[in-house]
Parts: sequence; C-alpha cells; structure tokens
Amino acid sequence: MQQAISTRHLLGIKNITAQDIELILETAKSFKEVINRPIKKVPSLRDITIANLFFENSTRTRLSFELAEKRLSADTINFTSSGSSVKKGETLLDTVNNILAMKVDMVVMRHSSPGAPHFLSDKIKANIVNAGDGTHEHPTQALLDSFSMQERLGDLAGKRIAIIGDITHSRVALSNIFCLQKLGAEVAVCGPTTLIPKYLHTLGVKRFDTVGEALRWCDVANVLRIQLERQQLKFFPSLREYSLYYGITKKMLDELDKEIIVMHPGPINRGVELSSDAADSGHSIILDQVENGVAVRMAVMYLLAQKN
Amino acid sequence: MQQAISTRHLLGIKNITAQDIELILETAKSFKEVINRPIKKVPSLRDITIANLFFENSTRTRLSFELAEKRLSADTINFTSSGSSVKKGETLLDTVNNILAMKVDMVVMRHSSPGAPHFLSDKIKANIVNAGDGTHEHPTQALLDSFSMQERLGDLAGKRIAIIGDITHSRVALSNIFCLQKLGAEVAVCGPTTLIPKYLHTLGVKRFDTVGEALRWCDVANVLRIQLERQQLKFFPSLREYSLYYGITKKMLDELDKEIIVMHPGPINRGVELSSDAADSGHSIILDQVENGVAVRMAVMYLLAQKN
Amino acid sequence: MQQAISTRHLLGIKNITAQDIELILETAKSFKEVINRPIKKVPSLRDITIANLFFENSTRTRLSFELAEKRLSADTINFTSSGSSVKKGETLLDTVNNILAMKVDMVVMRHSSPGAPHFLSDKIKANIVNAGDGTHEHPTQALLDSFSMQERLGDLAGKRIAIIGDITHSRVALSNIFCLQKLGAEVAVCGPTTLIPKYLHTLGVKRFDTVGEALRWCDVANVLRIQLERQQLKFFPSLREYSLYYGITKKMLDELDKEIIVMHPGPINRGVELSSDAADSGHSIILDQVENGVAVRMAVMYLLAQKN
Repeated sequence: MQQAISTRHLLGIKNITAQDIELILETAKSFKEVINRPIKKVPSLRDITIANLFFENSTRTRLSFELAEKRLSADTINFTSSGSSVKKGETLLDTVNNILAMKVDMVVMRHSSPGAPHFLSDKIKANIVNAGDGTHEHPTQALLDSFSMQERLGDLAGKRIAIIGDITHSRVALSNIFCLQKLGAEVAVCGPTTLIPKYLHTLGVKRFDTVGEALRWCDVANVLRIQLERQQLKFFPSLREYSLYYGITKKMLDELDKEIIVMHPGPINRGVELSSDAADSGHSIILDQVENGVAVRMAVMYLLAQKN
Repeated sequence: MQQAISTRHLLGIKNITAQDIELILETAKSFKEVINRPIKKVPSLRDITIANLFFENSTRTRLSFELAEKRLSADTINFTSSGSSVKKGETLLDTVNNILAMKVDMVVMRHSSPGAPHFLSDKIKANIVNAGDGTHEHPTQALLDSFSMQERLGDLAGKRIAIIGDITHSRVALSNIFCLQKLGAEVAVCGPTTLIPKYLHTLGVKRFDTVGEALRWCDVANVLRIQLERQQLKFFPSLREYSLYYGITKKMLDELDKEIIVMHPGPINRGVELSSDAADSGHSIILDQVENGVAVRMAVMYLLAQKN
Repeated sequence: MQQAISTRHLLGIKNITAQDIELILETAKSFKEVINRPIKKVPSLRDITIANLFFENSTRTRLSFELAEKRLSADTINFTSSGSSVKKGETLLDTVNNILAMKVDMVVMRHSSPGAPHFLSDKIKANIVNAGDGTHEHPTQALLDSFSMQERLGDLAGKRIAIIGDITHSRVALSNIFCLQKLGAEVAVCGPTTLIPKYLHTLGVKRFDTVGEALRWCDVANVLRIQLERQQLKFFPSLREYSLYYGITKKMLDELDKEIIVMHPGPINRGVELSSDAADSGHSIILDQVENGVAVRMAVMYLLAQKN
C-alpha cells in the first residue's frame, strides 16, 4: 500500500482515489487501537494548529473532530459563526484568511454552502477538511461508515448497501455513494420519490420503491435522518405516514432470512425513520460508527498534515 | 479514614455515606494546597477525558469544573445544549451515549430535569458527576459549602446552620441539608411560607419565621439567591418587601452578641437577599466558597476516577 | 532598553510610557520569530491561568488572544457574557471576583462600557489586559498597528499616519493616536464631520476634509471600518455616498507620486471604506497586522506576567 496520501485537502470523496480511501481506512485501524488503550494520546500533531470553523452548528461532528485533534496532541481553536464577523458582512475568504494569518496549519470546516471548502482550497495554504458543505458532501462521515462496515463484513467489494430515507437533502448519502462505489460495493437508495434526486441513476445507483425490497436485497441498511428542522413536512404528508412506509422496525429485520446491519449517522428520530427496538438491537452498529468517527478523523488529519 | 470512595457516581448527597463525604473533604484539603502553589497542576487525571454536558447554562459552575479538570491535567470537551442535537429531537440517552462512544471516561452534567443524571447512571459506563439537576440536588455545592464551614469552625457536629431564602426552588438547599446532617450539624430554614416546602419537617429541619430568630440561633447563615429570572414575583409581593423582611444587612450581623458566618452560593443580588455591606464584610466567606469549589471538585473527580 | 514593563495592567495606551511601548514592540519581535518556527510554542507562561472575559463579542480579537496564550503555554478559560450571570443581575465586580477566586492570574477583558477595565484595576489582584472597552481604547490593536508600520518603515518618528473613517465610534483610532504620538509620529484624521470628535484638535491631531488630501500627505493610511451594525446610517446619507467620498481604491493609491501603506483593523466592508483591489494590492499590509497581533499579544502578556 502507498505510504502517503495524494491530496492536500479532503474536500469530498468524489475526487479522491480508492488508494487514498484505503490508506485512510488502514491508518484509522491503528488509531482505533490507540484510543482504546488506557493512554489515548499520541504526539503526532504536537506542533500543528487546527482551526475548527463551524459556520453551521453540529454538536457531534465538532466534538468528534475536537477529540480526534486532542488525541493527536494538536492545538485547536474553535470558531462558530454565531456572534462572529460573518454577521458583520465580512466575506468568507477574508474571515478564513484572517484566521490563517494567525499561523493555522489546518482548517476543519462546516459550511451551509455547497462548494465553500472547494472555493477556499485554491486560495489558502492550510490543509482543508470538509466537515460538511450544505447538501453536497460529508466525506469523513462516508469514511467512518465504510470503516464500520469493513469491521463487520471485511472487504466491501460486491457487498450491497441500501441508503434509505431523504437522499436529496443528505450530504451523507452522496459521500457514501462515492465511497462505497470506489471500494467496489453496490449501492441502492430507497425513499419517497420527492426525496430521491433524478440524477442518481446516472451514478449507477439502484433504486427501490419499498423498504421491504431494499432490506431483502441489502447486506447493510444505512438509514438517514428525517431532518425535522429543515423539512417543514413539505416532501411527504406527515411523519406518521413516513414512519409507516419508510420506517424500519426490529420486526422487519428479524423477519428477513439473513442477517443485515443497520446504520444511522445520528441524531436518530426514534419512531420515525427507525424504531427504538431496531436502533437498540444487535443489528445496529450505530455507536460503533460514533467511536470509529474519532479514529477515522485522526487518520485523515494525520495523513493530510504530512503533506505540508 | 477509608482510602477509596464507595460510589462510582456523585448523583446527590442523599445517597452517599458520611464516610465518603469526609473522604472528599479531606482530599479537597490537599488539592487546596496544590492550587495555592505557584505550579497549580497535578498530573493525576492525565489520561482521563471528561465531558462537561451543560444542558442548562451555568457560568460559575462550568468554569469551576473546567478549572478543576485542567488542574488535574484531564482532557475536556464541552457540550452546551444551545445549538445541539437536543434541539433536533434526540433523546438524552442517545446524546450522552454518542458522546460516550467517543471514549469519554467521566461526565459532568447539569440538566433542568430532576433525576436526569440518576436516569443515566444505570445505563452508561462513565462516571457521572451531577452539577445540578433542576430543583433537586447540587452535591458539589453542598460539599464546598461544608468544606468552607469546616475551615472556619472545624468539626461541624453540633453546629447550627440556617439556610435563608427560597428553599423550594433551590437544589443548593436540599443538598446542603443532607450534607450537613450527615456531618452531624443542626439545620434550620427561614423564608416566606410560599418558598418553604411542606415536607421539610420530615427531614428533621427546624423552621424560623423571622430572619432575626434564625440569626440569633445559628453559627452560619447560608443565604440563598432570589432567582429573579425564575420567580416573576409570584411567591412574594415585591423585591422591596422581600428585602425588608428577609434581607440581611451588616447592621443585623453586627448587633448579634456573637460572631456568625455568612455564605451565599452566588450570584448575589446585592440589596435584595444580602446588602452590599454584609456581602463585603468580615462575616462573609463568599469568595472562599468559590475558591474552595475548585479544590472540592478536583477531589470528587479524582476519587471517582479511581473507581473505573 | 529597560528590561521590565513599568505597569501591572495594560488598560490603555494613554497612560503607558513610550519606554513601555518600545519594550513591548521589541519583545514582540522575538515572539514573531517563535511563531514562525515549526515549533511555535514556548513554555513562558506554563503556570499561569488566563481568563478571557468577553462581555462583548469579538471573533478575531478573542482568537488572537487565545492563540497567543496557547503559544505561551498558559492555561485558559473562556467566559462570554451570553448565558452568564451577567444576565442574572450580578455586578461586574462580583462576576470578575468570582472568576479570580478560582486562582486566575490574568484577565483579558472586552466590555462595552468605556472604563470597565480601569474600574476593576484598583480592585483586583490579577493583571488586566484591556481587549477593547466601548468606544474608548483598544491598546493591543494600536500596538500591533505600530509594530506592523515599523516592520515597513523602521523608526516611526516624523512619519505621517492618516486615520480615515469613523473616528468617533472607534477605540482603534484613539489608541492609535496615543501610540503613534508617543513614538514620535504625526497623526491626522479624515472622515465625515459627523464622525470626527470635536476634541481631537486638543490632542495635536491634524484634520483633512478630503481623502485625496490625506493620502497625498501621509506615509500610512489606516482605514477604519464603517460599523454597519452600529450606525443605522445616521451619520452619513448612505453607504454609496460614503464609499464615493471616503472610500479608497487601488486607482487612487496608484496615482499618488509615492508609495504609501494601507492598513485596516478588520473586518473589511469590501467596496465601502476600501475597494477589493486596494485591500488585496501590494499597498495593503492587512494580513501582516493579523499575524503580528498574535506576537504583540504574546509580548504584552509575557511582560505583564513578570509583574506578579
């Protein structure tokens, strides 16, 4: 396997190679061992300063990155847009350049505009990690999802993954599709017609109309969150309706004639896209995903820092 | 004295033993020496990660815990509910489990619902420190109050402590009553009838109708805050009225034929429950309480971490 | 040069000596070398705890101080007024005394009331650094501005600096005037009559009515921000009008028969007080200012900590 990553930034999964993905996942294995030791820290990034620029809120992603940075012994500064110069009419480039002028080596960035980290990547010297750009990509989520599947299934080549729910508004879905296909897996989606983008078939993604079909086909069901706070119920009649037609219960999983894995990027709406008994069942690897997130993010930041 | 604490969590004072309380207070003495040295840090919790989960705001308690954690060399992550997944409809258990999946060893938690930390304590592996649960308990406040009284009075057995003010809405009052009684002190309360819970006499707590009587009886007056932002003046006619009947002034303290100690958990409403001259007088040990808070919290976290 | 600073606090530029200013700027030079090394940290303040008390929001100043503190290996705690005891009616002195009782050695403080840090300075034992008090002073900004000018121009004695824009509402302007005059420079202001305070001529400050005259006179143009969020357009007819009469463009700079330097404390309103091409031109040292801010703040905190 190659020893160094071939990119200075992790902007998305679309433009990185399968080799880079494999290197990240392999490196994450070592870091997972580190964070399960009594002494969970390594001095790898001791002289690196990382700025976490969250122009959009995200508790779990921010905490996961922060912990990954601490485990790597990096120095961190946190910027959240509330109460910042963004409100005073400053451009994104000026805000970021100001932070970089303070000698920051790496930027972890969440932004509501698709393409915001790509826009910056030509213009700044620091490494950029995209921690979610609008409805576009969320590459570290896709990497931790693939890592978690590999832990259970080994090589993902030929494995079947169904992504179920709101595909249109999900950066998790798009990054997962790219990542899984590069690792040789087959990907399908399932959800209300109004929440499946029309261009998906051009990516070679199957589509199922009912959850039953999707579950019978797949090895892994990656269930997405209905974003209550964004939807205002415009894309389907009601949550009760959604839950009835697309919600997954333990009973449905138990009745399959094979064992499948259930994943969810969190936070779960219990009783909407996933019943409580399904989320807490042996099928679910949801908390593994969270644990693996720290190891995968350590791997990404460690590898990118070598490219400075 | 015993060498180890007998509990994995500090959920409240009600359910811990007098021996545990004494061990915490004794340990806090050593830590108070540490934080008064030029080098204020010890490496005791160097490999421990502590999550401060403040689902309710609290500047002084959060800062005190954070400083205690830094003095112990722990790694910390901070979570406040504003802008978090809580708003997205996630359950408390899911939020906490997610944070714990990131390999967190100890949780310091403030929550507006009484019993929230108790609910979690059966379900999670990390140590839990209750940093205030609704109007129920605030155990580290009670411990630092007892520590501060001991510094002045020595053994508290037989000493008389009057808690004055809004007892009903105060987690400080309840934890103080349990703590002081376990240490052998006599406790009384004093305040408007509407702010004294009826069940208190079942706990063996005396009651005084006037502040004058309470002050003549006690060795220590622990004056509680009128929570302006919560009360909306429903429980007494006006602040002026409250201050007239229950406010404590330096004159009142000077006219007693003995020396008593005045305490307050802060933030003080100067001129309401306590006059400025009383708060700043030699009777007051209010700033000692704040200083001791850091030492007591260091002791609690240090002792609990031994139980992992 | 003297070896120690003669003050325990940096409350403003008005009351410190030219010798102290020169010592800070000289010390900042060494720290600028430090932060440009691969290993950007020094252990200078390893046993010092610094509280950043931002009663008013400020992304860039807060991040700059935080990074300076981390580079010096200090322990830091952050307090922002949102969600704090300030809302619960506590006095400023009580809030600060509480934080200091937790054994804090230095306070970096931004407050909306002019004089707030001066008020505290007689009453508390910690060193105080004023990080901006209302429209009064912002001493570290003035120091970093002078540092950045010296890097380009050497000794500032006899140099001509024009401060252009909203002088009345700018703490940057006042601190700059004091600092530059103590270093022997000539200072002029330029802006709409409604935004120039009447008392300025008593300080020996020139005044220009048009930007053209100011630019022809000066070696350095320090362009201030129109504070869109504060002005509500009360002091001039419209932004378009302001930009037409007081905005600076690259064309204006290129047409001068000499080289001048353009500075801005940020955040820039591109196209209002400064055109994009001027801000990004070779005339501009705006990002140098940001970089130098960290070094200058390190110098200030390092020197004050020696006075404990």
